[in-house]
Amino acid sequence: MDEGRTIELLDTTLRDGAQSEGVSFSLQDKIAVVEVLDRLGVPLIEAGNPGSNPKDEELFRIVRDAPPKSSSIVAFGATRRPDATCDSDPQMSALADAGTSVVTLVGKAWGMHIREILRTTPDENERMIRESVAWLVAHGKRVIFDAEHFFFGWKDDRALAMRMAAAAAEAGASVVCLCETNGGAFPEEVAEATRAMIDRLCGRCAVGIHAHDDSGLAVANTIAAVRAGATHVQGTLCGFGERCGNANLATVLANLQLKLGYACIAPERMSLLTPSVRHIAAIANVVLPGGLPYVGRRAFAHKGGMHMDGVRKVASSFEHVTPESVGNTRRFLVSEQAGRSAVIDRIRAVVPEIDRDDPGVDEVVRRLKEREKEGYQYEGADGSFELLIRKTIRPYKPFFALERLRILGEITVMPAHSVNTSAMIKVTADGHTEISAAEGEGPVNALDNALRKALGHFYPRIREMRLTDFKVRIIDADAATAATVRVLIESTDGHRIWTTVGVSYDIIEASWLALVDSVENKLIHDSMES
Amino acid sequence: MDEGRTIELLDTTLRDGAQSEGVSFSLQDKIAVVEVLDRLGVPLIEAGNPGSNPKDEELFRIVRDAPPKSSSIVAFGATRRPDATCDSDPQMSALADAGTSVVTLVGKAWGMHIREILRTTPDENERMIRESVAWLVAHGKRVIFDAEHFFFGWKDDRALAMRMAAAAAEAGASVVCLCETNGGAFPEEVAEATRAMIDRLCGRCAVGIHAHDDSGLAVANTIAAVRAGATHVQGTLCGFGERCGNANLATVLANLQLKLGYACIAPERMSLLTPSVRHIAAIANVVLPGGLPYVGRRAFAHKGGMHMDGVRKVASSFEHVTPESVGNTRRFLVSEQAGRSAVIDRIRAVVPEIDRDDPGVDEVVRRLKEREKEGYQYEGADGSFELLIRKTIRPYKPFFALERLRILGEITVMPAHSVNTSAMIKVTADGHTEISAAEGEGPVNALDNALRKALGHFYPRIREMRLTDFKVRIIDADAATAATVRVLIESTDGHRIWTTVGVSYDIIEASWLALVDSVENKLIHDSMES
Repeated sequence: MDEGRTIELLDTTLRDGAQSEGVSFSLQDKIAVVEVLDRLGVPLIEAGNPGSNPKDEELFRIVRDAPPKSSSIVAFGATRRPDATCDSDPQMSALADAGTSVVTLVGKAWGMHIREILRTTPDENERMIRESVAWLVAHGKRVIFDAEHFFFGWKDDRALAMRMAAAAAEAGASVVCLCETNGGAFPEEVAEATRAMIDRLCGRCAVGIHAHDDSGLAVANTIAAVRAGATHVQGTLCGFGERCGNANLATVLANLQLKLGYACIAPERMSLLTPSVRHIAAIANVVLPGGLPYVGRRAFAHKGGMHMDGVRKVASSFEHVTPESVGNTRRFLVSEQAGRSAVIDRIRAVVPEIDRDDPGVDEVVRRLKEREKEGYQYEGADGSFELLIRKTIRPYKPFFALERLRILGEITVMPAHSVNTSAMIKVTADGHTEISAAEGEGPVNALDNALRKALGHFYPRIREMRLTDFKVRIIDADAATAATVRVLIESTDGHRIWTTVGVSYDIIEASWLALVDSVENKLIHDSMES
Repeated sequence: MDEGRTIELLDTTLRDGAQSEGVSFSLQDKIAVVEVLDRLGVPLIEAGNPGSNPKDEELFRIVRDAPPKSSSIVAFGATRRPDATCDSDPQMSALADAGTSVVTLVGKAWGMHIREILRTTPDENERMIRESVAWLVAHGKRVIFDAEHFFFGWKDDRALAMRMAAAAAEAGASVVCLCETNGGAFPEEVAEATRAMIDRLCGRCAVGIHAHDDSGLAVANTIAAVRAGATHVQGTLCGFGERCGNANLATVLANLQLKLGYACIAPERMSLLTPSVRHIAAIANVVLPGGLPYVGRRAFAHKGGMHMDGVRKVASSFEHVTPESVGNTRRFLVSEQAGRSAVIDRIRAVVPEIDRDDPGVDEVVRRLKEREKEGYQYEGADGSFELLIRKTIRPYKPFFALERLRILGEITVMPAHSVNTSAMIKVTADGHTEISAAEGEGPVNALDNALRKALGHFYPRIREMRLTDFKVRIIDADAATAATVRVLIESTDGHRIWTTVGVSYDIIEASWLALVDSVENKLIHDSMES
């Protein structure tokens, strides 16, 4: 444990992270990301490159007028162009004018890059670094110098790489951040080069680390640098970034703060970690890998029977930290492998008084296996699984029954372009029959509208609920459009959120089945309240 | 470089990997996974636990009759039960009878687990290990002993952990594999404990490593153990496994063989790495994270303008290895950030003779941005992007035009359950109008059937093509069923594979747009051939 030492975190989701395939932020998205990072208490938020695009300029204007509470906004840009002056370089002026007190300035530290990509000389490159840092310092900025390709440069020509990084320190940079830009280095090399650079700088400024994950070692390389003496860490909270991504800042933060005793954020905010990561992923509209350390949906999910049994006896038997410490939750998965005892836990959450030997338990297990064979998956559909339990364990009277439904979708191009979808539905509830029709934006929306209209007569509280997410998955992709479709619907009534599932070869029927479960789930909870 | 040293790989996708949430293999799937691993040349394939489920028993019977060419199949099981004999333990008999020459035997190496989970004494646990290993060796097996929780055990009580592992070696195990079961350790600890264990065993048997990714360090921990002297490595090729997954064997293999000079598989098979990983993911029907090192879709994808420019000048400027060395491909992404030069590269792939200053280039960039704003994404839709280019650069005459289409979906419950979807379509091609109708399994299938029927009169070769995948994504999930929908369709005609995209608030229209692009793409390529 290296207790107490403070590590300064810089999140670059909005800059390096936006270079991920599939990630693109609107101005509103960027403001929302800043809010999430501010709430978590990440000290530095690199928000973009004001010299390269107008969207980022607008963002810097907005955050200047309404600055975050606990974070500082950082503007990012490159050193001045070769054979120019800082005053005449519009990029440098944009950095000076962005209105941030902190600036990240990137410069080259690898001879190959200086010669082949920048097409200049090491001497001119050193002048570019020196003058650009000094110019920004003279403009009142705190400067973090990103020594791009430092580790590849170091392997190629140690003296040159260190000379470039040292130039930034001598010109007044407050951090020299060593960048593992290509993601190809190993922890031993990173530790050795970081130590060498710290020795060279003699305490003149702090040393930082910026790593990429191309070898699956971004987290390990970051921690190796910190253990070697680096006190500034760059990364992205979700691991977004060019190619395989930047170092995942959530994983690094949890490792440093929970396991190695460093201070990164206020301890009482650690439980915001999982919600913060998921919130940013939702803003970016990106599905995170379920296996992400600490914050993934599966990070504390137990499936093997032996593992579930172990965790039930002693949680630490198969968990390295508690899920609560990072704001995540433990989950026992229901599956073939889970066996009876996991199912009993789930049943007891719904019917607490049930006996372990109740024949209903075996019946739930049987139906579960049968449904899984059809393509159902209850791991992500708590609302439907609850209904399956209720319908199996006790006599269950559905709130309504479908008699028939019909969906009509029309696209007309000639004489004029129009798209129209409508649904007709006939249901029975409480001995009465109701028929209704509605239009909608697509078949599921039309169906949803028609169903609420029909049921609203019987159950007025159904108007409180709305669908919040809708996912479609082809289960047997080989057969493409004729394959089985699994639809997941997420619903809320403002108090609860529940997820339901439907499976069919027809997307309309699968959607309908998920919709019915969603509405039944709402109605049964309402009836228990009253 | 530790050149030449051979590392024995064991893939446990079918055993530990099957404990991933969302992963479940049928018997056919398991046989297919064995084939992929055999082709890649992974020496050991842990195929399952013959004592725990009948599906695995059947698998062992099948692979005994048709063994893999270059791999050995391994059966997995636990040491005998406390206070029993090996002869009377049905699990041990199942292991002996599985018909494999190699067996992995797991036993406890952490006092807490021995006492609280197994509820026995360290002395009895040691006897369980010793007797079980010796019994299997006497039955002619080569035994790999998995020392479960070795590293947590080592931190807790070094002597006890080493005593358990040494017992297996003394009883005749050929490998003692140290397991980082909870995924909570750091590379330094792993290296130190591995070195200590190697010293203790005095060359009596080989030492292995089995790591999990709960701290994002599975790859780093595996490599740390190998550098400390371990010669046997366990993992899963896609990183599947309990919670955050096992060490990703593809990443470990590429790091060890391409960068550190160890010998793992035949060098000429390295280019099978990416296709093998993707094949297993397809069998498991799991979408792999795009950022997976070496083998991910994004591993060699460049989006930032500066990065693309650099890679164009010198590939190694932003790539740590060549994509070809692992069977992956380089991709320049088309996006706002990519700028004009990336788009020119893509246009030239379609219209090689175009001039850099052709006004068509700017028009493609303009349309691209417009479409991206509507929710289109061309990064994964080459077929549609090609059409966008063709339609913009040169006069383009579509092969057919829609006049109208109508989809009718009906679900009837009373008096009898029936689901029926049909589509009617009216199109014009070559000055003639054709109207056709078809049923289908769901609206997209019905539409596809009706369209081919109508166009088959004009373009008989359209019968060669079929849809192979179909993906639906809600773009603005907050609005749920009324949000914008993006549909991606993958098609093939047996020679080419192409992907097309459609966006609309109505899933039927979005599907239709993707379908039209798919068919146009087929027809234009046919017309160029003839």
